Amino acid sequence: MGAPYAEGMAEREGVHFLKGHGTQNDFVILPDADAQLDLTAAKVAAICDRRAGIGADGVLRVVPVHAVDGISAARAQWFMDYHNADGSIAEMCGNGARVFARFLADEGWEANSQFVIATRAGEHEVSVGPRGQVSVEMGKAIDGPLGDSPKVLVAGEPRDADAWWVPNPHAVVFVDDVVALESPLLAPEVIAYGRFPDGQNVEYACDRTIGDELHAEVRVHERGVGETKSCGTGVYAVSLSLRKRHNVAGPSTSTVDVPGGRLWVEHAADGRVRLVGPTELVARGTFLAKWWENAG
Amino acid sequence: MGAPYAEGMAEREGVHFLKGHGTQNDFVILPDADAQLDLTAAKVAAICDRRAGIGADGVLRVVPVHAVDGISAARAQWFMDYHNADGSIAEMCGNGARVFARFLADEGWEANSQFVIATRAGEHEVSVGPRGQVSVEMGKAIDGPLGDSPKVLVAGEPRDADAWWVPNPHAVVFVDDVVALESPLLAPEVIAYGRFPDGQNVEYACDRTIGDELHAEVRVHERGVGETKSCGTGVYAVSLSLRKRHNVAGPSTSTVDVPGGRLWVEHAADGRVRLVGPTELVARGTFLAKWWENAG
Repeated sequence: MGAPYAEGMAEREGVHFLKGHGTQNDFVILPDADAQLDLTAAKVAAICDRRAGIGADGVLRVVPVHAVDGISAARAQWFMDYHNADGSIAEMCGNGARVFARFLADEGWEANSQFVIATRAGEHEVSVGPRGQVSVEMGKAIDGPLGDSPKVLVAGEPRDADAWWVPNPHAVVFVDDVVALESPLLAPEVIAYGRFPDGQNVEYACDRTIGDELHAEVRVHERGVGETKSCGTGVYAVSLSLRKRHNVAGPSTSTVDVPGGRLWVEHAADGRVRLVGPTELVARGTFLAKWWENAG
Repeated sequence: MGAPYAEGMAEREGVHFLKGHGTQNDFVILPDADAQLDLTAAKVAAICDRRAGIGADGVLRVVPVHAVDGISAARAQWFMDYHNADGSIAEMCGNGARVFARFLADEGWEANSQFVIATRAGEHEVSVGPRGQVSVEMGKAIDGPLGDSPKVLVAGEPRDADAWWVPNPHAVVFVDDVVALESPLLAPEVIAYGRFPDGQNVEYACDRTIGDELHAEVRVHERGVGETKSCGTGVYAVSLSLRKRHNVAGPSTSTVDVPGGRLWVEHAADGRVRLVGPTELVARGTFLAKWWENAG
Protein backbone atom coordinates (compact mmCIF):
# COMPACT_ATOMS: atom_id res chain seq x y z
CA MET A 1 0.00 0.00 0.00
CA GLY A 2 3.04 2.27 0.27
CA ALA A 3 3.44 2.66 -3.47
CA PRO A 4 1.15 5.62 -4.18
CA TYR A 5 2.80 7.62 -1.42
CA ALA A 6 6.29 6.95 -2.74
CA GLU A 7 5.14 7.99 -6.21
CA GLY A 8 3.73 11.20 -4.82
CA MET A 9 7.04 11.96 -3.14
CA ALA A 10 9.11 11.47 -6.25
CA GLU A 11 6.71 13.51 -8.34
CA ARG A 12 7.14 16.83 -6.61
CA GLU A 13 10.38 18.28 -5.39
CA GLY A 14 10.09 21.39 -3.30
CA VAL A 15 12.14 23.54 -0.98
CA HIS A 16 13.65 21.62 1.94
CA PHE A 17 13.11 22.68 5.53
CA LEU A 18 13.49 21.49 9.08
CA LYS A 19 11.54 22.58 12.10
CA GLY A 20 13.14 22.93 15.50
CA HIS A 21 12.91 24.86 18.73
CA GLY A 22 14.89 26.03 21.74
CA THR A 23 12.79 26.32 24.91
CA GLN A 24 9.76 26.57 22.59
CA ASN A 25 11.09 29.47 20.59
CA ASP A 26 10.49 27.75 17.25
CA PHE A 27 12.02 28.10 13.83
CA VAL A 28 11.76 26.86 10.28
CA ILE A 29 15.30 26.16 9.06
CA LEU A 30 15.92 26.54 5.32
CA PRO A 31 19.17 24.82 4.28
CA ASP A 32 20.47 26.85 1.34
CA ALA A 33 24.02 25.64 0.75
CA ASP A 34 24.01 26.96 -2.82
CA ALA A 35 22.45 30.33 -1.88
CA GLN A 36 19.70 29.75 -4.42
CA LEU A 37 16.62 30.62 -2.35
CA ASP A 38 14.73 33.80 -3.13
CA LEU A 39 13.33 34.50 0.32
CA THR A 40 11.00 37.49 0.26
CA ALA A 41 9.38 38.98 3.36
CA ALA A 42 6.02 37.72 2.10
CA LYS A 43 7.39 34.19 1.73
CA VAL A 44 8.76 34.27 5.28
CA ALA A 45 5.38 35.42 6.60
CA ALA A 46 3.63 32.65 4.66
CA ILE A 47 6.01 29.99 6.03
CA CYS A 48 5.58 31.26 9.60
CA ASP A 49 1.77 31.44 9.37
CA ARG A 50 0.79 28.84 11.95
CA ARG A 51 -2.37 27.76 10.11
CA ALA A 52 -1.88 28.43 6.40
CA GLY A 53 1.85 27.60 6.49
CA ILE A 54 4.10 25.55 8.78
CA GLY A 55 4.28 28.09 11.58
CA ALA A 56 7.26 29.43 13.52
CA ASP A 57 8.59 32.43 15.40
CA GLY A 58 11.12 32.95 12.64
CA VAL A 59 13.03 31.53 9.69
CA LEU A 60 16.72 30.59 9.80
CA ARG A 61 18.18 30.41 6.31
CA VAL A 62 21.51 28.57 6.30
CA VAL A 63 23.82 30.05 3.69
CA PRO A 64 27.61 30.06 3.22
CA VAL A 65 29.34 33.18 4.51
CA HIS A 66 31.13 33.66 1.19
CA ALA A 67 27.80 33.88 -0.64
CA VAL A 68 26.53 36.83 1.40
CA ASP A 69 27.43 40.38 0.44
CA GLY A 70 28.57 42.73 3.16
CA ILE A 71 29.34 40.05 5.73
CA SER A 72 32.91 39.57 6.83
CA ALA A 73 33.34 36.63 9.12
CA ALA A 74 36.79 35.12 8.99
CA ARG A 75 36.11 32.38 11.51
CA ALA A 76 32.63 31.30 10.38
CA GLN A 77 31.59 29.06 7.52
CA TRP A 78 27.82 29.56 7.77
CA PHE A 79 25.70 32.70 7.98
CA MET A 80 22.44 32.75 9.95
CA ASP A 81 20.05 34.70 7.74
CA TYR A 82 17.43 35.31 10.42
CA HIS A 83 13.93 36.60 9.64
CA ASN A 84 11.14 37.36 12.09
CA ALA A 85 7.74 35.73 11.55
CA ASP A 86 6.36 38.95 10.06
CA GLY A 87 9.09 38.97 7.39
CA SER A 88 11.19 41.69 9.00
CA ILE A 89 14.93 41.22 9.51
CA ALA A 90 16.53 40.89 12.94
CA GLU A 91 20.22 41.10 13.67
CA MET A 92 20.41 38.27 16.16
CA CYS A 93 18.26 35.79 18.05
CA GLY A 94 19.83 33.84 20.91
CA ASN A 95 17.52 30.82 20.75
CA GLY A 96 17.59 30.95 16.95
CA ALA A 97 21.38 30.83 16.99
CA ARG A 98 21.27 27.80 19.29
CA VAL A 99 18.85 25.94 16.99
CA PHE A 100 20.93 27.00 13.96
CA ALA A 101 24.06 25.53 15.58
CA ARG A 102 22.21 22.32 16.43
CA PHE A 103 21.21 21.96 12.78
CA LEU A 104 24.80 22.45 11.56
CA ALA A 105 26.17 19.88 14.00
CA ASP A 106 23.43 17.26 13.61
CA GLU A 107 23.42 17.42 9.82
CA GLY A 108 27.19 17.25 9.57
CA TRP A 109 27.58 20.71 8.05
CA GLU A 110 30.07 21.41 10.83
CA ALA A 111 32.43 18.61 11.81
CA ASN A 112 33.24 19.81 15.33
CA SER A 113 31.04 20.42 18.33
CA GLN A 114 32.50 23.91 18.84
CA PHE A 115 32.50 26.40 15.99
CA VAL A 116 31.68 29.96 15.03
CA ILE A 117 28.56 31.14 13.22
CA ALA A 118 28.07 34.46 11.44
CA THR A 119 25.04 36.67 12.08
CA ARG A 120 24.16 40.24 11.19
CA ALA A 121 25.41 41.10 14.69
CA GLY A 122 28.84 39.56 14.02
CA GLU A 123 30.48 36.25 14.81
CA HIS A 124 29.30 34.07 17.68
CA GLU A 125 31.00 31.07 19.22
CA VAL A 126 28.69 28.12 19.73
CA SER A 127 29.08 24.78 21.43
CA VAL A 128 26.82 21.79 20.81
CA GLY A 129 26.58 19.24 23.59
CA PRO A 130 25.71 15.58 23.24
CA ARG A 131 22.13 15.82 24.48
CA GLY A 132 20.98 18.80 22.48
CA GLN A 133 22.31 21.39 24.93
CA VAL A 134 23.68 24.28 22.90
CA SER A 135 25.46 27.39 24.12
CA VAL A 136 25.92 30.58 22.15
CA GLU A 137 28.03 33.58 22.93
CA MET A 138 25.85 36.65 23.21
CA GLY A 139 26.91 40.17 22.30
CA LYS A 140 27.85 42.68 24.95
CA ALA A 141 25.19 44.76 26.63
CA ILE A 142 25.33 48.37 25.43
CA ASP A 143 24.28 51.67 26.97
CA GLY A 144 20.88 53.01 26.01
CA PRO A 145 19.43 56.51 26.29
CA LEU A 146 20.02 58.21 29.64
CA GLY A 147 17.13 58.87 31.99
CA ASP A 148 15.41 57.81 35.17
CA SER A 149 14.83 54.14 35.84
CA PRO A 150 11.73 52.97 34.02
CA LYS A 151 8.73 51.75 35.98
CA VAL A 152 6.46 48.85 35.10
CA LEU A 153 2.94 48.72 36.48
CA VAL A 154 2.23 45.49 38.32
CA ALA A 155 -1.37 45.13 39.52
CA GLY A 156 -1.74 48.87 39.00
CA GLU A 157 1.30 49.75 41.11
CA PRO A 158 4.38 51.28 39.47
CA ARG A 159 7.52 49.28 40.32
CA ASP A 160 11.14 50.16 39.60
CA ALA A 161 12.53 48.24 36.65
CA ASP A 162 16.00 47.77 35.21
CA ALA A 163 16.66 48.95 31.67
CA TRP A 164 19.04 46.83 29.57
CA TRP A 165 20.09 46.93 25.91
CA VAL A 166 21.40 43.50 24.88
CA PRO A 167 21.34 45.09 22.34
CA ASN A 168 17.53 45.26 22.03
CA PRO A 169 15.71 47.13 24.83
CA HIS A 170 14.41 45.30 27.89
CA ALA A 171 12.71 46.35 31.11
CA VAL A 172 13.14 43.81 33.91
CA VAL A 173 10.80 44.07 36.89
CA PHE A 174 10.86 41.78 39.91
CA VAL A 175 7.52 40.44 41.12
CA ASP A 176 6.47 38.08 43.92
CA ASP A 177 4.75 35.48 41.74
CA VAL A 178 4.87 35.14 37.97
CA VAL A 179 2.14 32.50 37.90
CA ALA A 180 -0.43 34.92 39.29
CA LEU A 181 0.26 37.49 36.56
CA GLU A 182 -2.39 37.70 33.90
CA SER A 183 -3.43 40.94 32.31
CA PRO A 184 -0.08 42.77 32.60
CA LEU A 185 1.37 40.38 30.09
CA LEU A 186 -1.24 41.13 27.47
CA ALA A 187 -0.28 44.81 27.41
CA PRO A 188 2.31 45.82 29.98
CA GLU A 189 2.19 49.43 31.10
CA VAL A 190 5.64 50.97 31.23
CA ILE A 191 6.62 54.45 32.38
CA ALA A 192 9.77 54.76 30.34
CA TYR A 193 10.99 58.32 31.07
CA GLY A 194 12.26 58.46 27.50
CA ARG A 195 14.52 55.46 27.87
CA PHE A 196 12.62 53.31 25.37
CA PRO A 197 11.71 55.58 22.44
CA ASP A 198 10.93 52.54 20.26
CA GLY A 199 9.19 50.45 22.89
CA GLN A 200 10.68 47.58 24.88
CA ASN A 201 10.39 43.98 25.87
CA VAL A 202 9.31 43.37 29.46
CA GLU A 203 10.48 40.57 31.73
CA TYR A 204 8.54 39.82 34.89
CA ALA A 205 10.99 37.97 37.13
CA CYS A 206 10.45 36.19 40.40
CA ASP A 207 13.77 35.93 42.23
CA ARG A 208 14.43 32.34 43.36
CA THR A 209 18.08 32.87 44.25
CA ILE A 210 19.39 30.81 47.15
CA GLY A 211 22.79 31.87 48.44
CA ASP A 212 24.95 32.56 45.40
CA GLU A 213 22.85 30.38 43.06
CA LEU A 214 21.31 33.11 40.93
CA HIS A 215 17.91 31.88 39.80
CA ALA A 216 14.69 33.46 38.52
CA GLU A 217 11.35 32.35 37.19
CA VAL A 218 10.37 34.62 34.32
CA ARG A 219 7.56 35.51 31.96
CA VAL A 220 8.28 37.59 28.90
CA HIS A 221 6.28 40.10 26.89
CA GLU A 222 7.94 40.70 23.54
CA ARG A 223 7.53 44.02 21.79
CA GLY A 224 5.04 43.70 18.95
CA VAL A 225 4.35 40.03 19.69
CA GLY A 226 2.84 39.56 23.15
CA GLU A 227 3.67 36.92 25.73
CA THR A 228 6.10 34.31 24.43
CA LYS A 229 7.40 31.01 25.75
CA SER A 230 11.00 32.13 25.70
CA CYS A 231 13.28 35.01 24.70
CA GLY A 232 17.06 34.64 24.63
CA THR A 233 17.90 38.32 25.04
CA GLY A 234 15.21 38.66 27.72
CA VAL A 235 16.83 35.87 29.71
CA TYR A 236 20.18 37.61 29.28
CA ALA A 237 18.65 40.85 30.58
CA VAL A 238 17.27 39.00 33.62
CA SER A 239 20.73 37.62 34.38
CA LEU A 240 22.06 41.20 34.40
CA SER A 241 19.33 42.20 36.86
CA LEU A 242 20.10 39.20 39.07
CA ARG A 243 23.78 40.15 39.14
CA LYS A 244 22.92 43.74 40.02
CA ARG A 245 20.39 42.75 42.68
CA HIS A 246 22.81 40.36 44.36
CA ASN A 247 25.93 42.52 43.86
CA VAL A 248 27.76 39.95 41.75
CA ALA A 249 30.68 41.42 39.78
CA GLY A 250 32.71 38.29 39.00
CA PRO A 251 31.85 35.16 37.06
CA SER A 252 28.34 33.80 37.58
CA THR A 253 25.79 31.35 36.25
CA SER A 254 22.15 32.38 36.36
CA THR A 255 19.41 29.78 36.01
CA VAL A 256 16.37 31.29 34.31
CA ASP A 257 13.10 29.39 33.98
CA VAL A 258 10.84 30.61 31.19
CA PRO A 259 7.49 29.01 30.28
CA GLY A 260 9.20 27.06 27.47
CA GLY A 261 11.96 25.54 29.60
CA ARG A 262 15.16 26.26 31.52
CA LEU A 263 18.06 28.36 30.28
CA TRP A 264 21.35 29.32 31.85
CA VAL A 265 23.35 32.50 31.38
CA GLU A 266 27.06 32.21 32.05
CA HIS A 267 29.01 35.39 32.72
CA ALA A 268 32.70 34.56 32.36
CA ALA A 269 35.62 36.28 34.10
CA ASP A 270 36.63 37.93 30.81
CA GLY A 271 33.17 39.52 30.47
CA ARG A 272 31.90 37.13 27.81
CA VAL A 273 28.34 35.94 28.16
CA ARG A 274 26.90 32.63 26.98
CA LEU A 275 23.27 31.53 26.70
CA VAL A 276 22.96 27.79 27.36
CA GLY A 277 20.02 25.43 27.09
CA PRO A 278 18.17 22.67 25.26
CA THR A 279 17.36 22.56 21.55
CA GLU A 280 15.29 20.06 19.60
CA LEU A 281 14.90 19.28 15.91
CA VAL A 282 11.34 18.03 15.28
CA ALA A 283 10.94 17.19 11.61
CA ARG A 284 12.32 17.64 8.13
CA GLY A 285 10.35 18.08 4.97
CA THR A 286 9.75 19.85 1.71
CA PHE A 287 7.26 22.55 0.85
CA LEU A 288 5.04 21.36 -1.97
CA ALA A 289 6.08 23.13 -5.17
CA LYS A 290 2.60 24.48 -5.83
CA TRP A 291 2.32 25.92 -2.32
CA TRP A 292 5.80 27.46 -2.44
CA GLU A 293 5.14 29.18 -5.77
CA ASN A 294 1.90 30.74 -4.57
CA ALA A 295 2.97 31.58 -1.02
CA GLY A 296 3.42 35.20 -0.11
CA MET B 1 27.51 21.66 -0.78
CA GLY B 2 24.40 19.51 -0.87
CA ALA B 3 26.14 16.32 0.16
CA PRO B 4 26.00 16.58 3.97
CA TYR B 5 22.28 17.33 3.81
CA ALA B 6 21.61 14.26 1.66
CA GLU B 7 23.58 12.12 4.12
CA GLY B 8 21.53 13.44 7.00
CA MET B 9 18.32 12.57 5.18
CA ALA B 10 19.33 8.98 4.46
CA GLU B 11 20.52 8.45 8.01
CA ARG B 12 17.23 8.89 9.80
CA GLU B 13 13.88 7.58 8.67
CA GLY B 14 10.91 8.74 10.63
CA VAL B 15 7.14 8.84 10.46
CA HIS B 16 5.78 10.53 7.32
CA PHE B 17 3.36 13.42 7.49
CA LEU B 18 1.81 16.14 5.39
CA LYS B 19 0.44 19.46 6.56
CA GLY B 20 -2.62 21.00 5.00
CA HIS B 21 -5.54 23.28 5.75
CA GLY B 22 -9.07 24.15 4.70
CA THR B 23 -9.93 27.82 5.30
CA GLN B 24 -7.11 27.84 7.88
CA ASN B 25 -8.44 24.93 9.86
CA ASP B 26 -5.14 23.06 9.78
CA PHE B 27 -4.19 19.42 10.08
CA VAL B 28 -1.23 17.10 10.22
CA ILE B 29 -2.01 14.13 7.95
CA LEU B 30 -0.40 10.81 8.88
CA PRO B 31 -0.50 8.36 5.94
CA ASP B 32 -0.73 4.91 7.51
CA ALA B 33 -1.58 2.52 4.68
CA ASP B 34 -0.31 -0.45 6.65
CA ALA B 35 -2.06 0.56 9.89
CA GLN B 36 1.25 0.40 11.74
CA LEU B 37 1.19 3.69 13.64
CA ASP B 38 0.73 3.62 17.38
CA LEU B 39 -0.94 6.99 17.82
CA THR B 40 -1.47 7.76 21.50
CA ALA B 41 -3.31 10.85 22.75
CA ALA B 42 0.00 12.17 24.08
CA LYS B 43 1.63 11.74 20.67
CA VAL B 44 -1.22 13.62 18.99
CA ALA B 45 -0.88 16.46 21.48
CA ALA B 46 2.89 16.58 20.90
CA ILE B 47 2.45 16.70 17.10
CA CYS B 48 -0.17 19.46 17.38
CA ASP B 49 1.90 21.59 19.80
CA ARG B 50 2.52 24.67 17.70
CA ARG B 51 5.94 25.39 19.19
CA ALA B 52 7.42 22.13 20.40
CA GLY B 53 5.87 20.07 17.56
CA ILE B 54 4.59 20.85 14.07
CA GLY B 55 1.31 22.40 15.17
CA ALA B 56 -2.25 21.83 13.94
CA ASP B 57 -5.88 21.88 14.98
CA GLY B 58 -5.97 18.11 14.63
CA VAL B 59 -4.42 14.95 13.22
CA LEU B 60 -5.90 12.97 10.33
CA ARG B 61 -4.55 9.43 10.28
CA VAL B 62 -5.23 7.75 6.91
CA VAL B 63 -5.87 4.07 7.41
CA PRO B 64 -7.64 1.38 5.33
CA VAL B 65 -11.22 0.73 6.38
CA HIS B 66 -10.56 -3.02 6.60
CA ALA B 67 -7.84 -2.45 9.20
CA VAL B 68 -10.15 -0.67 11.65
CA ASP B 69 -12.24 -2.65 14.11
CA GLY B 70 -15.86 -1.69 14.51
CA ILE B 71 -16.13 0.34 11.33
CA SER B 72 -18.40 -0.91 8.58
CA ALA B 73 -18.16 1.19 5.47
CA ALA B 74 -19.03 -0.74 2.32
CA ARG B 75 -18.44 2.16 -0.07
CA ALA B 76 -15.26 3.61 1.45
CA GLN B 77 -11.68 2.46 1.09
CA TRP B 78 -10.08 4.85 3.61
CA PHE B 79 -10.97 5.69 7.19
CA MET B 80 -10.38 9.18 8.60
CA ASP B 81 -9.00 8.57 12.08
CA TYR B 82 -9.52 12.10 13.37
CA HIS B 83 -7.96 13.39 16.61
CA ASN B 84 -8.33 16.83 18.15
CA ALA B 85 -5.20 18.79 19.03
CA ASP B 86 -5.54 17.86 22.71
CA GLY B 87 -5.49 14.15 21.83
CA SER B 88 -9.21 13.57 22.28
CA ILE B 89 -11.24 11.78 19.60
CA ALA B 90 -13.90 13.52 17.51
CA GLU B 91 -16.44 11.78 15.31
CA MET B 92 -16.26 14.14 12.36
CA CYS B 93 -14.70 17.38 11.21
CA GLY B 94 -15.99 19.01 8.03
CA ASN B 95 -12.82 20.86 7.11
CA GLY B 96 -10.74 17.88 8.18
CA ALA B 97 -12.73 15.62 5.86
CA ARG B 98 -12.16 18.05 2.99
CA VAL B 99 -8.38 18.11 3.58
CA PHE B 100 -8.40 14.30 4.00
CA ALA B 101 -10.13 13.94 0.60
CA ARG B 102 -7.67 16.33 -0.99
CA PHE B 103 -4.79 14.20 0.27
CA LEU B 104 -6.32 10.99 -1.11
CA ALA B 105 -6.91 12.53 -4.53
CA ASP B 106 -3.61 14.42 -4.84
CA GLU B 107 -1.50 11.49 -3.70
CA GLY B 108 -3.28 9.02 -5.97
CA TRP B 109 -4.71 6.93 -3.12
CA GLU B 110 -8.11 7.41 -4.78
CA ALA B 111 -8.23 7.29 -8.57
CA ASN B 112 -11.44 9.27 -9.06
CA SER B 113 -12.38 12.80 -8.09
CA GLN B 114 -15.57 11.62 -6.41
CA PHE B 115 -15.44 8.94 -3.75
CA VAL B 116 -16.63 8.01 -0.28
CA ILE B 117 -14.61 8.29 2.93
CA ALA B 118 -15.33 6.58 6.23
CA THR B 119 -15.43 8.47 9.53
CA ARG B 120 -16.61 7.63 13.04
CA ALA B 121 -19.83 9.41 12.02
CA GLY B 122 -20.36 7.12 9.04
CA GLU B 123 -19.69 7.36 5.32
CA HIS B 124 -19.40 10.72 3.56
CA GLU B 125 -19.37 11.44 -0.14
CA VAL B 126 -16.61 13.80 -1.20
CA SER B 127 -15.78 15.52 -4.45
CA VAL B 128 -12.36 17.00 -5.26
CA GLY B 129 -12.28 19.81 -7.81
CA PRO B 130 -9.36 20.76 -10.04
CA ARG B 131 -8.32 23.86 -8.10
CA GLY B 132 -8.35 22.43 -4.60
CA GLN B 133 -12.07 23.00 -4.02
CA VAL B 134 -13.41 20.05 -2.08
CA SER B 135 -16.96 19.30 -1.04
CA VAL B 136 -18.02 16.90 1.67
CA GLU B 137 -21.44 15.63 2.54
CA MET B 138 -22.30 16.58 6.09
CA GLY B 139 -24.51 14.56 8.41
CA LYS B 140 -28.08 15.55 9.10
CA ALA B 141 -28.88 18.08 11.76
CA ILE B 142 -30.47 16.39 14.78
CA ASP B 143 -32.82 17.58 17.50
CA GLY B 144 -31.26 18.65 20.79
CA PRO B 145 -32.79 19.08 24.22
CA LEU B 146 -36.07 21.00 24.30
CA GLY B 147 -36.28 24.43 25.87
CA ASP B 148 -36.53 28.12 25.19
CA SER B 149 -34.38 29.68 22.51
CA PRO B 150 -30.93 30.39 23.90
CA LYS B 151 -29.70 33.96 24.19
CA VAL B 152 -26.19 35.21 23.53
CA LEU B 153 -24.99 38.45 25.12
CA VAL B 154 -23.70 40.92 22.54
CA ALA B 155 -22.23 44.09 24.05
CA GLY B 156 -24.01 43.20 27.26
CA GLU B 157 -27.43 42.82 25.60
CA PRO B 158 -29.08 39.39 25.44
CA ARG B 159 -30.04 38.51 21.85
CA ASP B 160 -32.11 35.60 20.61
CA ALA B 161 -29.98 32.85 19.11
CA ASP B 162 -30.74 29.71 17.12
CA ALA B 163 -29.75 26.36 18.58
CA TRP B 164 -28.54 23.67 16.15
CA TRP B 165 -27.05 20.22 16.59
CA VAL B 166 -25.06 19.29 13.47
CA PRO B 167 -24.53 17.06 15.41
CA ASN B 168 -22.41 19.08 17.86
CA PRO B 169 -24.18 21.99 19.60
CA HIS B 170 -24.13 25.49 18.12
CA ALA B 171 -25.72 28.82 19.05
CA VAL B 172 -26.00 31.19 16.09
CA VAL B 173 -26.63 34.86 16.86
CA PHE B 174 -27.01 37.60 14.26
CA VAL B 175 -25.08 40.83 14.82
CA ASP B 176 -24.67 44.06 12.88
CA ASP B 177 -20.91 43.93 12.48
CA VAL B 178 -18.59 41.01 13.14
CA VAL B 179 -15.45 43.12 12.72
CA ALA B 180 -16.35 45.29 15.71
CA LEU B 181 -16.71 42.28 18.00
CA GLU B 182 -13.87 41.79 20.41
CA SER B 183 -14.35 40.60 23.93
CA PRO B 184 -17.45 38.45 23.32
CA LEU B 185 -15.33 36.07 21.31
CA LEU B 186 -12.90 35.50 24.12
CA ALA B 187 -15.62 34.17 26.40
CA PRO B 188 -19.13 34.39 24.98
CA GLU B 189 -21.91 34.63 27.52
CA VAL B 190 -24.78 32.33 26.67
CA ILE B 191 -28.11 31.96 28.47
CA ALA B 192 -28.83 28.40 27.42
CA TYR B 193 -32.08 27.55 29.26
CA GLY B 194 -30.81 24.00 29.58
CA ARG B 195 -30.40 23.48 25.86
CA PHE B 196 -26.62 23.15 25.98
CA PRO B 197 -25.84 21.01 29.04
CA ASP B 198 -22.29 20.37 27.76
CA GLY B 199 -21.57 23.85 26.46
CA GLN B 200 -21.79 25.01 22.87
CA ASN B 201 -19.99 26.63 19.99
CA VAL B 202 -21.09 30.18 19.18
CA GLU B 203 -21.33 31.75 15.73
CA TYR B 204 -21.65 35.53 15.45
CA ALA B 205 -23.14 36.09 12.00
CA CYS B 206 -23.65 39.31 10.06
CA ASP B 207 -26.35 38.73 7.43
CA ARG B 208 -25.15 39.89 3.99
CA THR B 209 -27.96 38.24 2.04
CA ILE B 210 -29.10 40.07 -1.09
CA GLY B 211 -32.32 38.78 -2.62
CA ASP B 212 -32.16 34.99 -2.51
CA GLU B 213 -28.34 34.89 -2.35
CA LEU B 214 -27.93 33.66 1.23
CA HIS B 215 -24.69 35.10 2.57
CA ALA B 216 -23.18 35.77 6.00
CA GLU B 217 -19.93 37.00 7.45
CA VAL B 218 -19.13 34.96 10.53
CA ARG B 219 -16.80 34.67 13.49
CA VAL B 220 -16.69 31.47 15.49
CA HIS B 221 -15.98 30.67 19.12
CA GLU B 222 -15.34 26.96 19.52
CA ARG B 223 -16.13 25.22 22.76
CA GLY B 224 -12.95 24.64 24.75
CA VAL B 225 -10.76 26.31 22.14
CA GLY B 226 -11.62 29.99 21.72
CA GLU B 227 -11.95 31.98 18.52
CA THR B 228 -10.92 29.99 15.45
CA LYS B 229 -10.37 30.85 11.81
CA SER B 230 -12.98 28.41 10.57
CA CYS B 231 -15.38 25.70 11.74
CA GLY B 232 -17.16 23.41 9.27
CA THR B 233 -20.10 22.52 11.50
CA GLY B 234 -20.41 26.15 12.60
CA VAL B 235 -20.71 27.23 8.99
CA TYR B 236 -23.33 24.51 8.48
CA ALA B 237 -25.25 25.85 11.50
CA VAL B 238 -25.12 29.37 10.08
CA SER B 239 -26.60 28.12 6.79
CA LEU B 240 -29.52 26.65 8.75
CA SER B 241 -30.08 30.00 10.46
CA LEU B 242 -29.95 31.83 7.11
CA ARG B 243 -32.55 29.44 5.66
CA LYS B 244 -34.79 29.96 8.70
CA ARG B 245 -34.36 33.75 8.70
CA HIS B 246 -35.18 34.02 4.99
CA ASN B 247 -37.88 31.33 4.98
CA VAL B 248 -36.09 29.07 2.50
CA ALA B 249 -37.43 25.51 2.47
CA GLY B 250 -36.15 24.25 -0.91
CA PRO B 251 -32.63 23.87 -2.27
CA SER B 252 -30.21 26.67 -1.42
CA THR B 253 -26.57 27.66 -1.46
CA SER B 254 -25.30 29.78 1.42
CA THR B 255 -22.03 31.67 1.11
CA VAL B 256 -20.32 31.92 4.48
CA ASP B 257 -17.21 34.03 5.02
CA VAL B 258 -15.12 33.03 8.01
CA PRO B 259 -11.82 34.68 8.98
CA GLY B 260 -9.93 31.85 7.25
CA GLY B 261 -11.72 32.10 3.92
CA ARG B 262 -14.99 31.48 2.08
CA LEU B 263 -17.13 28.36 2.35
CA TRP B 264 -20.40 27.38 0.74
CA VAL B 265 -23.15 25.20 2.16
CA GLU B 266 -25.36 23.50 -0.42
CA HIS B 267 -28.73 22.22 0.73
CA ALA B 268 -30.02 19.86 -1.98
CA ALA B 269 -33.65 19.10 -2.81
CA ASP B 270 -33.29 15.64 -1.25
CA GLY B 271 -32.21 17.16 2.07
CA ARG B 272 -28.53 16.34 1.70
CA VAL B 273 -26.06 19.02 2.76
CA ARG B 274 -22.59 19.62 1.38
CA LEU B 275 -19.80 21.82 2.71
CA VAL B 276 -17.73 23.23 -0.16
CA GLY B 277 -14.54 25.28 -0.18
CA PRO B 278 -10.81 25.52 -0.74
CA THR B 279 -8.15 23.17 0.64
CA GLU B 280 -4.39 23.42 0.44
CA LEU B 281 -1.56 20.98 1.08
CA VAL B 282 1.48 22.90 2.34
CA ALA B 283 4.33 20.49 2.90
CA ARG B 284 5.32 16.88 3.38
CA GLY B 285 7.96 15.57 5.71
CA THR B 286 9.11 13.09 8.29
CA PHE B 287 9.31 13.43 12.04
CA LEU B 288 12.86 12.85 13.16
CA ALA B 289 13.08 9.42 14.77
CA LYS B 290 14.52 10.76 18.02
CA TRP B 291 11.74 13.35 18.34
CA TRP B 292 9.00 10.83 17.53
CA GLU B 293 10.26 8.34 20.12
CA ASN B 294 10.36 10.93 22.89
CA ALA B 295 7.19 12.84 21.95
CA GLY B 296 4.21 12.57 24.24
